[in-house]
Parts: sequence; structure tokens; C-alpha cells
Amino acid sequence: MKQILIIGAGRSSSSLISYLLEHSSAENWKVKVGDVTLELAQQKVNKHANGEAFVFDMNDDANRVKEIEQADIVISMLPAHLHSKVAVDCVRLKKNLVTASYVSKEINELDGEAKKSGIILLNEIGLDPGIDHMSAMQIIDKIKAKGDEVTLFKSYCGGLVAPEYNDNPWGYKFSWNPRNVVLAGQSTAKYIQNGEYKYIPYNRLFTQIETVSVNDLGDFDAYANRDSLSYRKPYGLENIPTLLRGTLRMKGYCKAWNAFVKLGLTDDSYQIENSEKLTYKELIESFLPFGNLSTKEKLKVFLGTDANSEVIDKLSWLGIFEDVRIGIANATPAQILQHLLEQKWILKPHDKDMIVMQHQFVAHNKSTNKSRKIISSLVVTGDDNIHTAMAKTVGLPMAIAARKILKGEINLSGVQIPVMKEIYEPVLQELQTLGIKFEEREE
Amino acid sequence: MKQILIIGAGRSSSSLISYLLEHSSAENWKVKVGDVTLELAQQKVNKHANGEAFVFDMNDDANRVKEIEQADIVISMLPAHLHSKVAVDCVRLKKNLVTASYVSKEINELDGEAKKSGIILLNEIGLDPGIDHMSAMQIIDKIKAKGDEVTLFKSYCGGLVAPEYNDNPWGYKFSWNPRNVVLAGQSTAKYIQNGEYKYIPYNRLFTQIETVSVNDLGDFDAYANRDSLSYRKPYGLENIPTLLRGTLRMKGYCKAWNAFVKLGLTDDSYQIENSEKLTYKELIESFLPFGNLSTKEKLKVFLGTDANSEVIDKLSWLGIFEDVRIGIANATPAQILQHLLEQKWILKPHDKDMIVMQHQFVAHNKSTNKSRKIISSLVVTGDDNIHTAMAKTVGLPMAIAARKILKGEINLSGVQIPVMKEIYEPVLQELQTLGIKFEEREE
Repeated sequence: MKQILIIGAGRSSSSLISYLLEHSSAENWKVKVGDVTLELAQQKVNKHANGEAFVFDMNDDANRVKEIEQADIVISMLPAHLHSKVAVDCVRLKKNLVTASYVSKEINELDGEAKKSGIILLNEIGLDPGIDHMSAMQIIDKIKAKGDEVTLFKSYCGGLVAPEYNDNPWGYKFSWNPRNVVLAGQSTAKYIQNGEYKYIPYNRLFTQIETVSVNDLGDFDAYANRDSLSYRKPYGLENIPTLLRGTLRMKGYCKAWNAFVKLGLTDDSYQIENSEKLTYKELIESFLPFGNLSTKEKLKVFLGTDANSEVIDKLSWLGIFEDVRIGIANATPAQILQHLLEQKWILKPHDKDMIVMQHQFVAHNKSTNKSRKIISSLVVTGDDNIHTAMAKTVGLPMAIAARKILKGEINLSGVQIPVMKEIYEPVLQELQTLGIKFEEREE
Repeated sequence: MKQILIIGAGRSSSSLISYLLEHSSAENWKVKVGDVTLELAQQKVNKHANGEAFVFDMNDDANRVKEIEQADIVISMLPAHLHSKVAVDCVRLKKNLVTASYVSKEINELDGEAKKSGIILLNEIGLDPGIDHMSAMQIIDKIKAKGDEVTLFKSYCGGLVAPEYNDNPWGYKFSWNPRNVVLAGQSTAKYIQNGEYKYIPYNRLFTQIETVSVNDLGDFDAYANRDSLSYRKPYGLENIPTLLRGTLRMKGYCKAWNAFVKLGLTDDSYQIENSEKLTYKELIESFLPFGNLSTKEKLKVFLGTDANSEVIDKLSWLGIFEDVRIGIANATPAQILQHLLEQKWILKPHDKDMIVMQHQFVAHNKSTNKSRKIISSLVVTGDDNIHTAMAKTVGLPMAIAARKILKGEINLSGVQIPVMKEIYEPVLQELQTLGIKFEEREE
């Protein structure tokens, strides 16, 4: 019997754990799920005969090493900064490791030793990063195989709420880390367009947006992600003239969100004086010039031409013009905003979330001097508020990859991300059978 | 013979050193001036019989201690973060220390030991901080002595170019650290107005400005300084409803500077790709949307209603629309902007700089329920580009305080800033005789 160790049983691990438990009898696996909160692990294991929930504390070195030692593969769902400690153990104990996080400097430095140990440290195999890498590389490799050149690559992704469950004016509910949503984009976005480097600082990130149309879902807002340039090398697109990665939101979201950026409500660098005593209305006032107008009227003047009724409706719906106490002490503006949004943007028990991803390519043929456009789109809807689209798209690629590694069908060592055929072909193929399927069209 | 040790012989130390050398014969002083660059120290000492220039290296512990040991008082003109090392030596060797920098955490922690040693660590006794503290406290104490209450305090300061030498459209030349000018304001400004806390984030710091009128010099732009709130306690104004500190610039400067903020050219957090190969025009392009207009026309569209001819003239004058190579590698946007400005905003040998400071108070009398407004303004013009207004206003308060300490006329110990009568009265009085004199009027 092979043993799988899953560390971390939060939101995003539900589909990962379900998949592994479902295959556990046929594959003869034991699936151990560890979390600091035993209850979370128990919920996910759900008394499955091949499953075991237990308390896992990262800082208990002896126990951590014991658990990793007993496993055949480790899947870490921990916050990104905690992976490297697990990875060091995995290299020493010769255990394969799978994560959905970006390769950190610390992880990258383990490449040589991992190769010596003959194990794989497979990272960036969730949704974004993960499915984005695999689906993009599949098309890029196909374009290159035809002898064509990729002259444009734009890639967008968004974790959203499914249209039928979109019952608030923002068209947004939290299906992942709220803090990351509030702080999104706070470093200059970098991309390349027609051979020119382009930079968008935070102060205008949500104003300089694109419109992206996805199948029959209609138009979305897209704002640029921090560093698109870093994708050139791993994707083999070193000389591409146009490359941009962006985040999708429902149409109109960005213009309203920009009100918070302009006010200063996404700032996480200092604490608001007396935040526990203030109301939301008073907080908004403290970011507006002094004057006699009502807070809402003052904000309209402040926003100028951006103050259309849709923007004001979105802001009003959140209750920022009301005399309701914030109630948290020593809070930064961003913490207060997060606190408010967590009360408003709740994914309710029967709500379904939705993942939307779209890649756009232009492939140029040198001999015919003709270009064609390829658009590949993915839409995934959650089953419920446990097996969310987010949990499925993050967890299933990891689960499938772990299975392939255990069965010896993925046979690589060292620090890897899923940009090579050997990984992306089998994983994408199985994802299709699970309903995670791109629609591709060519123009 | 008493010995004075001055560490650091840069721009701002010229008037400090001249003052001390002028009084050296009468007072029976030896004035030792140390700098890493011997030539700088020699220039300032100018072969004066009581002066001595020598090489001073902060990292040569033995020599540093030897020099401090021989001194009766130490004046540190080093960059602020280097003061604490000198202060530790001074406490141990029982030597008084004078600096023009803000009290750091490290310095503050030496208070108890300094008191035990019976020596003073006198900080914040330059211009800003320095003259601002002293002149403001003199008026605040007078208002309080009359039984009145200070209900408003606004204080502004700017290091500018004298009007007769103002021959560029920005009305600005560097009389101090260019890097600080480029990065100015990059944390949220905090102040209090009519009892309401107010916050201005960087993205609108240079748009939410005030107009400040100073004597016959006319109107200036004023943008808010980072943390006005921190002045309440040291000034004894804990319950003041309105308190704001701001920086003065020539009228129109802020609107044009805001173009750089909005573009993203003041960002110091990442490096521009291929900065050594780019021209200034290409750099500006990379912060503008892609399109067919000329760079200047595109910028006009980008700036919208802010693109008046004065703003465009200022930007054009700097050469940002020209195909001139930047010529520095791996540079951040802010470093490139600084590199350009250092070539354009030069204080020429015969130019004179100008310091402008203004305090505004409202004093309220409870029994009569009447308020009066007090406006106190200081204008200092440089003698030349050595004895600049900046060098005089930073160096002379330090020099006078050092003299008073040596003569036993200032008799305090521990970590101090010049907010008490015992310091500000004699220093302000002597500054007047040297032409640094506030004009006060009441309304």
C-alpha cells in the first residue's frame, strides 16, 4: 500500500482529497491528511476507509520528518512560504513533492540535490499557476511544431461567481484569499506590446483595462498582472513582441475598485487612528477633502467623470456611506476594507463560483507571411461551495500529477513546473474527462 | 583650548564651519573637520589657523574613538543612519553631540545613559527639523502664556531658488539631496482638520495642494508632509483640532510634478529593462498606452485636463520628449528621473538659493470667545553657491547651539530636541543677528 501525505486541508484542498480518496481502493493507496485544525482534515477525509486525518504542526520537526518519512509522495497545500521547509525534508528523505505555488528562490536552490536524490519537486501545478502553464504550452508547442512563430500571447484568468449566483452589483464573491484580492496589483505591471516594454503603476492599473470577451459569457474587465515579462523564458518566447497576462473581473468592477485605490483604502502600510471608534462613513470622510457636502456627494465630486451611477451603486451597496462602526482596532485601510468585503462578498452555501481562463495567440507563418489568431477559453463552474471551481481547478491538476508520479508515468527529477509535454499532455487529457476542458477557435 | 570635532564636510556644513572658525580665536577653540574626502574638509577649513582638516572614516573604529576622545563637543553632519554609532561613543566618552537629524529609535534609547553621563545629545537643530521647532515653540509658548489656546497650526517650509535666479520653468534647482526630492511624499500624508483625521495617499498628494502666500514673494504651492500628527505631542498640542505641515514649491510645480507621479517615473522599486539603451522619449513611451500619436501628444491625452501649456512647457524643457540616451544601466524609474534632473536643475556658481518658512496659528481666547490669526514668515537668501540659504539655516543653529553648550549656557543632558525655551530663545536671538529673522503679523 502506497502512502500519500497531504499537508493542509483548507478550502482549496477539497477536490484534491476527494480525487485521491476516490482512486485509493483501485490504486491501493492510503491518504493521510494533516492540518493544524484536526476538524478541517476530518471534514475532508469524511471517514473514508483509506483516509486518515491527523494534527500536523509544521513546527514540530520530529513529527513532520516522521510523517514525510512514511509517505511515498507529499502534497503541500501550505501557504507558499512554508513549502521550502517541507521540500528540504523531501530531498533528504527522497520523497516526491507536489505544490501549486510559484517556485521560490529557496525551492529553486534545491534543484541539484533533488536530481541527485532522484525525486521531483513539482510546483506551479494548480490553476494559475498550473492550468495556465499547461494549456498555453500545449498550444505554443503546436504552433511551433507547424513551423509558425508566436507573435502575440495574451492570457487572462479570473476566479469569479457563476452568473446565476451573481446577485450583487460587483459581480464578485470571495472564492479564495480575500487579502490577496484587496492588495492585488500593488506593484507596477510590466508587459511588452509590439516590441515596446510597457509599465503601468498601481495608481492607474484599474483604469488602463482591456475588455475580454469569453464565449457566451460576454465581456469582462481585464487588468494587467504584475510581471508578464517573466513568462518569456519558461515558455520559450524570448523574442515575442507582445505578451500580457491579466486578471478578469466582471464588467464595471475595475472602475468601481479604482475608487478605493484613489481614496487610499487599499493601503496596508499604516494604521488608521482610532479605527475601532470610527464608522465606515467617517473613514471615507477622512480620505476626502474637508467640506460641507454629504459624504456621498463629496465622493462624487472627488471621482469626477468616474462617478457614474453604476460606480456609486456598487460603493453604496457595500455600506461605506453608513454610520456603522468598523469595530476593529489598529487596522490599516486595507484591513478595514477586507473586513467590510468579507461581510458582503460571501459565497453562500448554495452559491457556485466560476473560473474563467482565456489564452489569445497570434501565430505567424514566415513563408506565407500570414497570421492566424487562436483563442482558447476555459469556463469551470463549481459543484457547490465545497467543491468550488477554484478547489477543482487548483486541486485536480495536483491530484492527477501526483497519481502519475506514483504510477511512474511522470518520470522527471529536480525542480519542475508543468511546461513540458511529458507533464501537460496526460494531465490536460484527464482534466478533460473531469469537465475541465478548453474550447479553442481559430480566426 | 577646547576642541570641536565636526564629522562630515559636505554641502550643508559650510556655514557651520565658517561660524565656528570665526569665533575660534575669541573663544580659544580648535576646530577639527573630518571627512572621507580630505579635499572637502580642506576646502571648508580654508587653511584657517585654528582649523584642521583630516581624513575621517566611520568604519575605522580606533581612529573614530580617538578623535571623539580628544574633542569637547562633536557635531555630526553624517547621513542620519550613521549618527547612532557616533552617539554611542559620545555617551561612553562623555562628550556632547549635536546633529540636525530626526531622533532615531537608536538615539532615543541612549537617553538614560546620556543623562547618567551628564552629556547632551542635541538633535533636530538644523532648518527642518530645527528652526521650525524653535520658531513655532516660541509662538506657541507665547500664546499659552496669554492663557489662549492654539486651535490651528499650519507650518510650511521649502528650499527653493531665489526669484532673481529663477531662470527655468519649474522655479526649482537642487540645494539639497536630489534623491529626496524625487522620492518625496511616497508615504501617505496624515494630518488633522477641524478634529477629523485626514489622509492623502501618494497618488493624489501633488493634486490636493494648498496655496500659501508669503510676504511680497507671492503665492506658493504647498503639499502635505508625511506625518503631521507626530508633532502634537512634542509641541504640547495634543488636542489641537487642525494641524498640518507642508512643503513649499513655486506655483505650478506640483501640477507638473504630478505628471511624473501619474506616469510612474518616481517609482524606485524595480529596474527598467535595457535602461542604458533607451532614450528619454522611449522611456516616456513605455509608461503611455500604445498608439500612433507623437509622445508629446499622447502625454497630453494621458494628462487630460491637467495638460495645460505650463505643464507641457515644464516637461518639454526637461527634454523628456527628445531622443537623447539615458545612458545608465539597471536603473529604476526614479534613478533615471533623478539623473535627468541633476543635469537640469543645477544651482550654478552665481545662483542664490532661498529658504522660505511660514507658520500659521489661530489662538483662541475662551473668556472672550475671540480668535486671532498669527502668521510668522522667514525668508533667507543664500550668499552664494557655497554659503547657500540651505547651508546657513541648517548649519548656523547647530553652530550657535554648540557654542552655547561649550560655554555652559545650554545646560541640559540626555536626548533633546530644541522645543524648550532654554534652547530656542538664545539660538533664535543670535540667528536674528545673522539675518535669519521671522516677520510676524497678527490678523
